[in-house]
Amino acid sequence: AAAAYGAAGSVWLYDASEDVRARAAGLDLGNVTATLAEAVEDADCVFLCVPVGALADVAQATVPHMKAGAILTDVGSVKKQAAEALCSADNGKVQIIPGHPIAGTEQSGPEAGFPTLFRGAWHILTPQDGKDETYGEAVQRLTDFWTALGAKVEMMDPGRHDRVLAITSHLPHLIAFNIVSTAFDMETVEQGEVVKFSAGGFRDFTRIAASDPVMWRDVFLNNKEAVLECLGRFTEDLAALQRAIRWGDGDLLIQEFTRARTIRKAIIDAGQDSGAVNFGRNQNGVKPDA
Amino acid sequence: AAAAYGAAGSVWLYDASEDVRARAAGLDLGNVTATLAEAVEDADCVFLCVPVGALADVAQATVPHMKAGAILTDVGSVKKQAAEALCSADNGKVQIIPGHPIAGTEQSGPEAGFPTLFRGAWHILTPQDGKDETYGEAVQRLTDFWTALGAKVEMMDPGRHDRVLAITSHLPHLIAFNIVSTAFDMETVEQGEVVKFSAGGFRDFTRIAASDPVMWRDVFLNNKEAVLECLGRFTEDLAALQRAIRWGDGDLLIQEFTRARTIRKAIIDAGQDSGAVNFGRNQNGVKPDA
Repeated sequence: AAAAYGAAGSVWLYDASEDVRARAAGLDLGNVTATLAEAVEDADCVFLCVPVGALADVAQATVPHMKAGAILTDVGSVKKQAAEALCSADNGKVQIIPGHPIAGTEQSGPEAGFPTLFRGAWHILTPQDGKDETYGEAVQRLTDFWTALGAKVEMMDPGRHDRVLAITSHLPHLIAFNIVSTAFDMETVEQGEVVKFSAGGFRDFTRIAASDPVMWRDVFLNNKEAVLECLGRFTEDLAALQRAIRWGDGDLLIQEFTRARTIRKAIIDAGQDSGAVNFGRNQNGVKPDA
Repeated sequence: AAAAYGAAGSVWLYDASEDVRARAAGLDLGNVTATLAEAVEDADCVFLCVPVGALADVAQATVPHMKAGAILTDVGSVKKQAAEALCSADNGKVQIIPGHPIAGTEQSGPEAGFPTLFRGAWHILTPQDGKDETYGEAVQRLTDFWTALGAKVEMMDPGRHDRVLAITSHLPHLIAFNIVSTAFDMETVEQGEVVKFSAGGFRDFTRIAASDPVMWRDVFLNNKEAVLECLGRFTEDLAALQRAIRWGDGDLLIQEFTRARTIRKAIIDAGQDSGAVNFGRNQNGVKPDA
């Protein structure tokens, strides 16, 4: 995306895995380097794209090689712990600005990217409080970068980000992982029919549940408080539906199901749904008109 | 679909709502009649497309007007209670064959149909046991009808159908309704951010949760036993994940999330996923080549 939209003069890439580096080079994603230091030493901005649990170690290995005034950011799905992890590497010479693109598919690895991935998507930045004017300018440069990729940039408090994402992303993923796991145990009983008749709703959950296990483990372990709070509410609400089914309380079911329609309508009205699973995914990755 | 694929000589339609009848006529879906009797009196096959809870009443109002030897079927998502409801109207002159297409979107009403809706989808029939050869021929005619629409027809025991659909369709819908409802209560707290950042996973659930409340109330009340059984397993499994998050058991999370990937792969390998939410939806509804 950075190359396709002209948002970066050049793109340099490093991954700890030799295999991933080779695949990224084969895809012509940028200049793939043999060491982390080479990838970051001339960079104006470094993007750490690793599971949240690995951020602190990777940030500490990265910052000493960065030039003064360069920006360090990330794309982690949790921001309070990400900010702490990134700031643990702060040497006073780099500008640390945590970030999170609300974009992506269930795929991971270098093959999973495509230039239009961020187009029309929100990109959340959680800048640090009480910083100077130079920091403000760095935030503006990073905002311009994501805007060039077609993203809509939003500033948020990291704690608020984590609470909002707990209900809009983390809990849905946990539920999806869980229902697929429940079905897995029933599948031997049902002789493959779970797979065969998955079009009735189950299939949509399996897509979400195909996401990277390590990334999601780190999300749940690093946003424990907000996830457990949402999960508690979810379980209470589910118990009420369960009771209504057991006792035949059709009115309560209708009332709850009708509410669900209202919020769907709000999402469509807000232009947050394109009708497809992923917002305007376009593998050809042509530049936007604007 | 019946008209587009030449599977029916003519299509006659009736709905209890005058408004729906007018919209169906406006869409040129078939010959819309002013009374139920007119719609069914010359029919070789009658399809009752009403919520499962209304099936018995509608079947009893329908059968006396049908000609001898004609087929009565339905499209309800629950089959044991549907079979009982349909058979409550049996006058010994019609052939009652319950059915369920594993197809559809979250939309309902006459505008929600399109000719390719059933193409590549499973259509389950749950024929009655111990019937004669004439009944067998009727089952074959109904099979041929759905096959002509592009569906793959499968015979199942109604109880087995209800257990399989409880996990592949009914529980996923209940979970989706519930999570959207949980978010609804948090939304005032989160100032519209639930809607704004719904692309992180939540949005996929709202689509499923936009389905018709009355239809789903009837599904849950008429497949109570199997739904409660699945829900019990789901809740147990979720409690285990909740505990793992609280106590930081990352290994258990990884293990469960990895299993979820396996079943996703099985669904893709079985050709049950087209990559889109709905299998090959094509609003233009051209006939298949074959």
